[in-house]
Amino acid sequence: MPDQVEESSSPARDTPAPLADLATITTRPSNRRRFLAEASALATFLAGCMRSKPEHEHEHEHGDTTSSAAKVAEHSPQNPDSRTDTALRHAMPASSSTPSTRGGGNIAFHRFDPVLPPVSSSRTTRLHFTAREVPIRVREDTVVAAWTFEGDIPGPIVHVRQGDTVEFTLTNAGSIPHSMDFHAAQLDPKVAFRSVLPGQSLSFTYKPKYSGVFLYHCGTAPVLMHMGSGMFGALVVDPLTPLRRAKEFVLVQNEFYLGSPHEGVAPFDYVKMLATLPDLFAFNGRPSQYQTAPIHVKRGDLVRFYVANAGPTHPCAFHIVGEQFDTVYLGAPPGSAIHGVQTFDVAAGGGMIFEMQADIPGEFVFVNHAFGHGQKGAIGVLVVEE
Amino acid sequence: MPDQVEESSSPARDTPAPLADLATITTRPSNRRRFLAEASALATFLAGCMRSKPEHEHEHEHGDTTSSAAKVAEHSPQNPDSRTDTALRHAMPASSSTPSTRGGGNIAFHRFDPVLPPVSSSRTTRLHFTAREVPIRVREDTVVAAWTFEGDIPGPIVHVRQGDTVEFTLTNAGSIPHSMDFHAAQLDPKVAFRSVLPGQSLSFTYKPKYSGVFLYHCGTAPVLMHMGSGMFGALVVDPLTPLRRAKEFVLVQNEFYLGSPHEGVAPFDYVKMLATLPDLFAFNGRPSQYQTAPIHVKRGDLVRFYVANAGPTHPCAFHIVGEQFDTVYLGAPPGSAIHGVQTFDVAAGGGMIFEMQADIPGEFVFVNHAFGHGQKGAIGVLVVEE
Amino acid sequence: MPDQVEESSSPARDTPAPLADLATITTRPSNRRRFLAEASALATFLAGCMRSKPEHEHEHEHGDTTSSAAKVAEHSPQNPDSRTDTALRHAMPASSSTPSTRGGGNIAFHRFDPVLPPVSSSRTTRLHFTAREVPIRVREDTVVAAWTFEGDIPGPIVHVRQGDTVEFTLTNAGSIPHSMDFHAAQLDPKVAFRSVLPGQSLSFTYKPKYSGVFLYHCGTAPVLMHMGSGMFGALVVDPLTPLRRAKEFVLVQNEFYLGSPHEGVAPFDYVKMLATLPDLFAFNGRPSQYQTAPIHVKRGDLVRFYVANAGPTHPCAFHIVGEQFDTVYLGAPPGSAIHGVQTFDVAAGGGMIFEMQADIPGEFVFVNHAFGHGQKGAIGVLVVEE
Repeated sequence: MPDQVEESSSPARDTPAPLADLATITTRPSNRRRFLAEASALATFLAGCMRSKPEHEHEHEHGDTTSSAAKVAEHSPQNPDSRTDTALRHAMPASSSTPSTRGGGNIAFHRFDPVLPPVSSSRTTRLHFTAREVPIRVREDTVVAAWTFEGDIPGPIVHVRQGDTVEFTLTNAGSIPHSMDFHAAQLDPKVAFRSVLPGQSLSFTYKPKYSGVFLYHCGTAPVLMHMGSGMFGALVVDPLTPLRRAKEFVLVQNEFYLGSPHEGVAPFDYVKMLATLPDLFAFNGRPSQYQTAPIHVKRGDLVRFYVANAGPTHPCAFHIVGEQFDTVYLGAPPGSAIHGVQTFDVAAGGGMIFEMQADIPGEFVFVNHAFGHGQKGAIGVLVVEE
Repeated sequence: MPDQVEESSSPARDTPAPLADLATITTRPSNRRRFLAEASALATFLAGCMRSKPEHEHEHEHGDTTSSAAKVAEHSPQNPDSRTDTALRHAMPASSSTPSTRGGGNIAFHRFDPVLPPVSSSRTTRLHFTAREVPIRVREDTVVAAWTFEGDIPGPIVHVRQGDTVEFTLTNAGSIPHSMDFHAAQLDPKVAFRSVLPGQSLSFTYKPKYSGVFLYHCGTAPVLMHMGSGMFGALVVDPLTPLRRAKEFVLVQNEFYLGSPHEGVAPFDYVKMLATLPDLFAFNGRPSQYQTAPIHVKRGDLVRFYVANAGPTHPCAFHIVGEQFDTVYLGAPPGSAIHGVQTFDVAAGGGMIFEMQADIPGEFVFVNHAFGHGQKGAIGVLVVEE
Repeated sequence: MPDQVEESSSPARDTPAPLADLATITTRPSNRRRFLAEASALATFLAGCMRSKPEHEHEHEHGDTTSSAAKVAEHSPQNPDSRTDTALRHAMPASSSTPSTRGGGNIAFHRFDPVLPPVSSSRTTRLHFTAREVPIRVREDTVVAAWTFEGDIPGPIVHVRQGDTVEFTLTNAGSIPHSMDFHAAQLDPKVAFRSVLPGQSLSFTYKPKYSGVFLYHCGTAPVLMHMGSGMFGALVVDPLTPLRRAKEFVLVQNEFYLGSPHEGVAPFDYVKMLATLPDLFAFNGRPSQYQTAPIHVKRGDLVRFYVANAGPTHPCAFHIVGEQFDTVYLGAPPGSAIHGVQTFDVAAGGGMIFEMQADIPGEFVFVNHAFGHGQKGAIGVLVVEE
């Protein structure tokens, strides 16, 4: 099924930084107070809790930063998530800050378009994604040091049909190894999903066996860090007989675990990811973006949400205020369906399809109804126009 | 479908207190040691963890209480849960303590009756709920400052049929805005579920489209705080062809996040809700109440549990010790059913129906089998009599 | 249905220690630094967070150990999980360390065989399990003070057919009460699942009503402590018409909450269990064991994973990298099936069956895709040989 898996060393657009640089990222005490004033109350409490107690961790704040990052790696729980991984494990960074994520103070905010793009007319879809480490403004007051596919969180929405051919190439323009794991693919991960070194490329081909909404993500160890820093997206596979015509939207939920900002950019924080108590949540990478700029449909539309949960850790209890889902596909559509549903959990690393008939005009809030999570940004508005 | 949405300003029974009063609630150091002695070991650890570290939070214990409550609001993560909300957001309280919740030391404990009331013989059900802020004794040693529908946690169990007409009025007898969000309704939330100011009323009408067990709850921002402080309940909708005759019970699970008691009343604590690590759990508002006073059925009965999960955050892994569920309805009954199930997760904000044939006499423990949660009070006993 | 429930007082093989001994287990400050150096970064942060703040807990580290254990019991949240339990509650230990778990420095590591054993040719299966408290090496650098069935975590895999007769005897060779709760059984828990005192035995008989993979576990209060310390396993029930021939494996996920090691043995820590933030995860008791020593099948095999989640608290988002599940049985097979699934949550205390057709040779990682959990050890490799 993997028609080809090719590797090339054509130089990527950005010059990759040496791995050693990653160890210089740290939490400067001088920035701490400012962060406290900016960050959420929760992030503050938890950061205080996690950062201040263990004796040996005090070096994390005051001491030599290179050694403190190394210390985290050394003490981390076994996380050999990809035995098939070719990447080095010794230089595991404690934060997502890399040379190319710095100085993002002027980065503009943009809304992520949730509209499912039309399916390709060709039965072969060629994708060339570049892994990039870039600053992204995820809300007015927050720029994050992101690891991405194609420079955004999430990566591009892909739309194909069951049995189509997907020809994929990953070029790594980052400073550390990255890789690609498609949940829609049947491929030997050791070969197709292996890590690509900075400046190099890898290609593989597959045919999606099942319809549905499938996550894709970087599978380089530690996967928690790579997914947690933004390297994920959604691929929608139409069944052979297309579902009923609808207004279709893709929502990828993720959690944010942020460290203190450095020069205006907050890194993703691996230690907080391990602690599994997120600061923020989002659909499509920006907390609450669809409250500020809602999704619009018209009365009479069938509305279909493709919900993928990038986690990394918590389920998404998807719900829409003032409506019910006529159908939820727990597996590949058009089968595996249940009906008349108020809320259903999408597992971390999973995807489900939620359909509702827009009978009534109004402003309907869609939300992760696990409200201690949803209220941190996994929330938006669907406007049904008359 | 909303036949009418009316608003009135008929004075509620209680005189609402000014919003400013909310900011005077705090955690007095002098009460702290006593609370430690009373509270659960976990609550103690977590409260210590959350309360003691961040520098700016020390004011929360020693300083001016008005400013510390304001500070929490100011630093809280974005929680614009209801863009459609008409309530002020600036005065968001950090605790559920309000004037009318104080002095509950003499409040008596009562068991919440879990029996599903009979369905109305009329095809129109008229409900008039009053939002009240009251002290409630949830276990022998714990009185909480509750925000409620009709003075209890959960609110009244409602039982209607698919397609019936529900005519609902909410009167706000509390001191802050409240509202009503029915998961069984199809209505424009911006209109029907909008916040009602103290002393005012709001009416709307709807016809449940689907059968099942549906949560209702206050949708006023921050929803986490309003749901987390007790404003939820369950509405059961029978399918057009009724399910097989059974002994029917409603269990609404919720989490408790409690602050230090003040004059014998423990407030719900918004910061702990955001931290998502609950102190206690309960079915129908009182931890472990059905262990002390079990639910009784007879051998040969079909037993049907309508399980709604008010969260606010964690799934409920519903299980019954010594039995299996013959049927679990994941969506609207009689469809969307699976069979032969030991345990299934009900999402936060969701509801599912669990059926078992009581073949064997005995004492069967029903529990949230996520035991780090269930053991904190989401547990009870079903006695099957010979 | 319970043909017999017998009790005997035949002496168990080990001499049970007095309950009072349990209170002598503690966390010695002198060992603390060493543990910090060994333990995961997360465990360290959380232990620091939980242990250091509350004033009255300082005795836990410096003071009289008997009183500190008692203190935990006294302050613990209500956890009357087994109203039907005959065991004393006052002596509830705060750690799993007992006399027979000590001195495990030389214990060897062994891989837990995940292969489903063949179903018995007889229609009656006789099981005699002994509850034992023993040290177990769960990874190269970690020996835990385990409470077990038959001396291992998990207990033995049992394989029967729907309607078979299971004749079960539990002998308690431990130092505290233990018991057995089979999720596959329909029995009065008050009788069959009651606690067995050290040195005594209990027998009961049942016929599994439904097919599937069912957890069994100790149900003695506090259940969280007994399940959390290793007393669980899986029982597979074939449907009357067997499922299609496959390579079949059993994976039981559990969480580890570990205290500081004493003489080389880390006890399970009840306070950390209550805090619900695990240090490690595993399939079949050893974090990441199937990465080191993978599971092997051949191209063309149908592969069937029986996944049971012993928790105690978190769902398991089961996924296999590079493949999809052709079928997931949410309830009793061959019904309650969905198809074309990337990831599905198995509730704590639940079990589901995951099938995939091994079309492609390679090394496929199976994982709890809640990566903040999976990466702590709920991960392994399935090798599909050409």
